Amino acid sequence: MTTNVNRQITLASRPVDYPVESDFNLVEAPIPEPQEGEVLVQAIWLSLDPYMRGRMRDVRSYATPVELDQVMVGGVAGRVIRSRTPALAEGDIVEGPLGWQEYAISDESRLRMVDQGLGPLSTALGVLGMPGMTAYFGFLHVGQPRPGDTVVISAASGAVGQVVGQISKIMGCRTVGIAGSQEKIDYIVNELGFDAGINYKTENLESALMAACPLGVDVYFDNVGGVVSDAVYEQLNVFSRIAVCGQISQYNAEEPEPGPRNLALLVRRQARAEGFLVGQFSNRFEEGRQRIAGWMKDGRIKYKEDVTVGLENAPRAFIGLMQGQNFGKLLIKVSEQ
Amino acid sequence: MTTNVNRQITLASRPVDYPVESDFNLVEAPIPEPQEGEVLVQAIWLSLDPYMRGRMRDVRSYATPVELDQVMVGGVAGRVIRSRTPALAEGDIVEGPLGWQEYAISDESRLRMVDQGLGPLSTALGVLGMPGMTAYFGFLHVGQPRPGDTVVISAASGAVGQVVGQISKIMGCRTVGIAGSQEKIDYIVNELGFDAGINYKTENLESALMAACPLGVDVYFDNVGGVVSDAVYEQLNVFSRIAVCGQISQYNAEEPEPGPRNLALLVRRQARAEGFLVGQFSNRFEEGRQRIAGWMKDGRIKYKEDVTVGLENAPRAFIGLMQGQNFGKLLIKVSEQ
Repeated sequence: MTTNVNRQITLASRPVDYPVESDFNLVEAPIPEPQEGEVLVQAIWLSLDPYMRGRMRDVRSYATPVELDQVMVGGVAGRVIRSRTPALAEGDIVEGPLGWQEYAISDESRLRMVDQGLGPLSTALGVLGMPGMTAYFGFLHVGQPRPGDTVVISAASGAVGQVVGQISKIMGCRTVGIAGSQEKIDYIVNELGFDAGINYKTENLESALMAACPLGVDVYFDNVGGVVSDAVYEQLNVFSRIAVCGQISQYNAEEPEPGPRNLALLVRRQARAEGFLVGQFSNRFEEGRQRIAGWMKDGRIKYKEDVTVGLENAPRAFIGLMQGQNFGKLLIKVSEQ
Repeated sequence: MTTNVNRQITLASRPVDYPVESDFNLVEAPIPEPQEGEVLVQAIWLSLDPYMRGRMRDVRSYATPVELDQVMVGGVAGRVIRSRTPALAEGDIVEGPLGWQEYAISDESRLRMVDQGLGPLSTALGVLGMPGMTAYFGFLHVGQPRPGDTVVISAASGAVGQVVGQISKIMGCRTVGIAGSQEKIDYIVNELGFDAGINYKTENLESALMAACPLGVDVYFDNVGGVVSDAVYEQLNVFSRIAVCGQISQYNAEEPEPGPRNLALLVRRQARAEGFLVGQFSNRFEEGRQRIAGWMKDGRIKYKEDVTVGLENAPRAFIGLMQGQNFGKLLIKVSEQ
């Protein structure tokens, strides 16, 4: 600590459609002092994730919105630099929802110790963190894949999609990813072993899906919604499962985009669309983390990170995430480990 | 049999939007002769059901469409009047998919003997037939209600909805029905014991649902889709279940009606929308039939039928069904029992 300044990114205004840089403020505050029972954490990595767009909106949802001039919410991995609780010591490496800022106060209940033996610290926010758990539990418990199933994943090279696809391959499913650039398609097919990839920006979705899924779709792990999902729904098999993880195509619109009402399709295919939040599986995260870490050690799960250096660049990186410009798990490197 | 004429209703043309009478033909054919292994059945009751609209459409679905000039499909309860199989005798009362006609040939595999001790013959096509099974299994197995849940049912006075609501009351759920006339609302509340009814044609759905469901909606048994469902979705609780049984509001449109994409709502509420067809439970129908029959004997399940006399009136009655003009289970009385 060579300074007593805590740089923070706050919500300046609620975005209309896509967020812009002026929706965020970079502010400076004094580094806070932990009270009894609290620690001061210096952020090393900040995770940027699509759910944050929802928190910028002033509507009832599963979580409280960020207030104007409040620090943006976000997961952080960092180091305890002052401790006033016996539960944590200076130097401990922890992960928790500490927000878009360089320093944060927390009590121990919101922090978990990171087992650095499992992987580099950044993975505590990615493949071994919330996105990895979302992939593991959402795919296995909500999607309920069986070996031989055809699995389609939207936003397939993203933080969640890349893990879903690799678990799908591990368990013997035909695995098809949808993404928005040739580079992403090459990555999921050539590096991650997906059976096929579809570039939704350049290909005809209907014919590409029919070619990639000759036996139809048994599990659709949906991160995006919108017209991509419309096309996948048409290929659903009887008794198929849709794990509705995210709908990023809809997050930057003021009103839900109108689309064909496809619930009649659910009836005809006897299909199930189930939304979930990863928190419903929180008492089982250790299982997911250990399994994924094991697959990483075996070389069966790889991961790709998209790193931007400097907290001040978080708004621009987040705006890019909303537009699909990231390639892999988006992270801000806030300080050196 | 005082005649050798078999009157039949065939599909004359595929409807554009709502069916009209000219989409049907009333034709006369000779009464057919059963071959070895077959029986001749005289229809007593013909069931008219919303699913038939889908069969008039020339698109891939869960069942083969009716061809032009083919007899319309439909469930029939009738009497065996000639038998060339030892499995059935003349005079036996049977139920099966014999179509919109006065006489039909069938082998025994498509027919079931009706246990007339369970209720009047017409109930073999209603509360103790396909609609009753749809209600019993769709509500209990797909909707997965728990005592104390708030249950909302669209098309609540219809063949399926009226049974769902009464099972919902039996198991201790707060039960709210949506229907399209004051007469229907009075019936479900005053006769069937629903806790509340909402007339979607005259009431503001949002405020009526909020008033009727102060604790939100745990199970939505959906027969209609469209704007009614949009309003119910807004009131869904976390971990709620939507049993998607039908989408009658969409059946008479050439293209799926555009509506707000509400899959993001499924994520936020961690809700599950599952389509089903009653056939998936066919190996358990006897359970459902016996339970409903027991509740009928106890006076805990009542039923309302809407009877039109004469096969020639089936097209007009079916057109009315598409427009919500029926009140209760729609049946055609084809001949006297």
